Amino acid sequence: MQRPEPEPQSFDRVLSSMCTEPHPDARAAAERFLAANPGDPATYETVAALEERAVERLATLADHPTPSDAAGYVTSGGTEANVQAVRSARNRHDGGRDDRGVNVVAPESAHFSFTKAAELLDVELRTVPVDDDYRADTDAVAAAVDDVTALVVGVAGTTEYGRVDPIPELAAIAAEAGARLHVDAAWGGFVLPFTDHDWSFADAAVDTLTIDPHKFGQAPVPAGGLLAREDAALDALAVDTPYLESRSQATLTGTRSGAGVAGAVAAMDALWPDGYREAAERAADHADWLAAELADRGYDVVEPELPLVAAAVPESEFAALRDAGWKVSRTGAGELRVVCMPHVTRSTLRAFLDDLDRIRG
Amino acid sequence: MQRPEPEPQSFDRVLSSMCTEPHPDARAAAERFLAANPGDPATYETVAALEERAVERLATLADHPTPSDAAGYVTSGGTEANVQAVRSARNRHDGGRDDRGVNVVAPESAHFSFTKAAELLDVELRTVPVDDDYRADTDAVAAAVDDVTALVVGVAGTTEYGRVDPIPELAAIAAEAGARLHVDAAWGGFVLPFTDHDWSFADAAVDTLTIDPHKFGQAPVPAGGLLAREDAALDALAVDTPYLESRSQATLTGTRSGAGVAGAVAAMDALWPDGYREAAERAADHADWLAAELADRGYDVVEPELPLVAAAVPESEFAALRDAGWKVSRTGAGELRVVCMPHVTRSTLRAFLDDLDRIRG
Repeated sequence: MQRPEPEPQSFDRVLSSMCTEPHPDARAAAERFLAANPGDPATYETVAALEERAVERLATLADHPTPSDAAGYVTSGGTEANVQAVRSARNRHDGGRDDRGVNVVAPESAHFSFTKAAELLDVELRTVPVDDDYRADTDAVAAAVDDVTALVVGVAGTTEYGRVDPIPELAAIAAEAGARLHVDAAWGGFVLPFTDHDWSFADAAVDTLTIDPHKFGQAPVPAGGLLAREDAALDALAVDTPYLESRSQATLTGTRSGAGVAGAVAAMDALWPDGYREAAERAADHADWLAAELADRGYDVVEPELPLVAAAVPESEFAALRDAGWKVSRTGAGELRVVCMPHVTRSTLRAFLDDLDRIRG
Repeated sequence: MQRPEPEPQSFDRVLSSMCTEPHPDARAAAERFLAANPGDPATYETVAALEERAVERLATLADHPTPSDAAGYVTSGGTEANVQAVRSARNRHDGGRDDRGVNVVAPESAHFSFTKAAELLDVELRTVPVDDDYRADTDAVAAAVDDVTALVVGVAGTTEYGRVDPIPELAAIAAEAGARLHVDAAWGGFVLPFTDHDWSFADAAVDTLTIDPHKFGQAPVPAGGLLAREDAALDALAVDTPYLESRSQATLTGTRSGAGVAGAVAAMDALWPDGYREAAERAADHADWLAAELADRGYDVVEPELPLVAAAVPESEFAALRDAGWKVSRTGAGELRVVCMPHVTRSTLRAFLDDLDRIRG
């Protein structure tokens, strides 16, 4: 007897995810490359060439001075990119006094992948407070760095509140301390080019940067992105690769997804720049609208900066929204968090508010 | 003007890869789940349930005593699974004397992902020689372990020669040293159930095991597998996950591929056990036939144990085969290496030998 085919959930009620429905071209490209492995470029040459194109496109978005020979690769996601940035900085740091290992300084708003990276890589993670508007407190960062700081992390689009840290100031602090600067723009990177925020290789002395096609870039999973200003950042990650007819491998994973690479290229070919600009503007409108609607209902709302809304909704109402089938999540402080991804429409948000109003009674 | 769609290479001349053409059901399932993220189970519930099924199926293949509650997850590939096994053993080891970190003992035949793991995790990798038949030399392993050995690695299907290490003997050495035992069956895991090798949870005191659906399991990329005898092995990897409505995350990556999970389940549903048995027997026949043909031509051939043939083909002939479009690779010792994956047919191998004969003149 045939078992019924499992079907994925629709994105209709997904307000909690930083992933989204892929662009149709990206989906089609991914389907063609489901069996290719960019981790073995001497065998899978077509997808290896596509990866070069993906890196050049990403480097263009992130204002790399020479996108056509930017260093980088398509990662499994933001976590791999962040882990690799920490690993590269650790490996490149010239070592501390005595036997102390290196440390990484990041705002408490940084994604939990930095906690994972520190545990994995056996480096100390020094998290410092954010200011009243949830951005890295530069005084606290300056106080936390020392001569064994390998990396300072700035976030351009925080996971909880969509905030952009003061990247040029963080770069200056890092430079002063002899540390490198990593920008985590995993989620923000496809929105920020259409804002006046400082976040890119052109805006500051950024060494490495995370920017994920499978988030606002509308590529299928898995397609994250790691970029570096200089080849040396990736060279510091390379291990030898016997049995592959290629010299070495700088990636964290071995076999990698051809679908992710091909999907990322197709999404960027279809949407950069106008499609992404329109998506970013629409999402910003939705976020502003939702924030105003929630404020009108008396909730404390964190003013959106990028298209992400947080509001202090009581636990009982949050639970009732989950029970009603809404995929929503919470900040560490317990606020409801709605990510206005490209699949989130005004009518979705109206339906969401209708349910909230019904729950409030 | 429309740019021509890039097309993936066919598998017709791919003899170097441990990946293969996915089963049609697996491809279809992967296409449906290209936008789902098993790394966020509270949002993507359907794929989270599929992952439980994948782990149960894998645990059945690997003779876990209780497959329905085996610990494990679908990784990005064998590298992630091996890295995580080393990380888990490092984190679970109760620490060594003085300030010495822990070490990992592995045969020199182990995959380069263990070199990557050691560099990443800042543990010492002690590689020991193999015996005359390319299997871990148990005397050398016993001599290399000490009281800060966290893990002994055995390979069940080596990348270069397809050899199966003496797993029960390695388990005994590990137990004696207070270390854990990891079996890397990334490539061999879907063939070994149809052989009389000792490799599984039932055959020895194996703590963790790598077994990749996207290799001989005929699932699309990315679908690796990590299994553990006990939950504690995964618990040792968990970090807290704010903003996700789930408690913690034990995976190396964050966002993960729903396509990989759904594809792996569909492949195993379609092929376990008869389809895999037939594929394993066909591949073994092809490997034996190719080995005999190469020996007839006067090459030194390493007798196949699992369906992988290595033969001492001169560099000039190897280069001419690559130039003729054959995707072949070499062992560290420079031998030609042909992996008889499910897409490799007898007629492919005949065409390959025809080209080789032409090259030899």
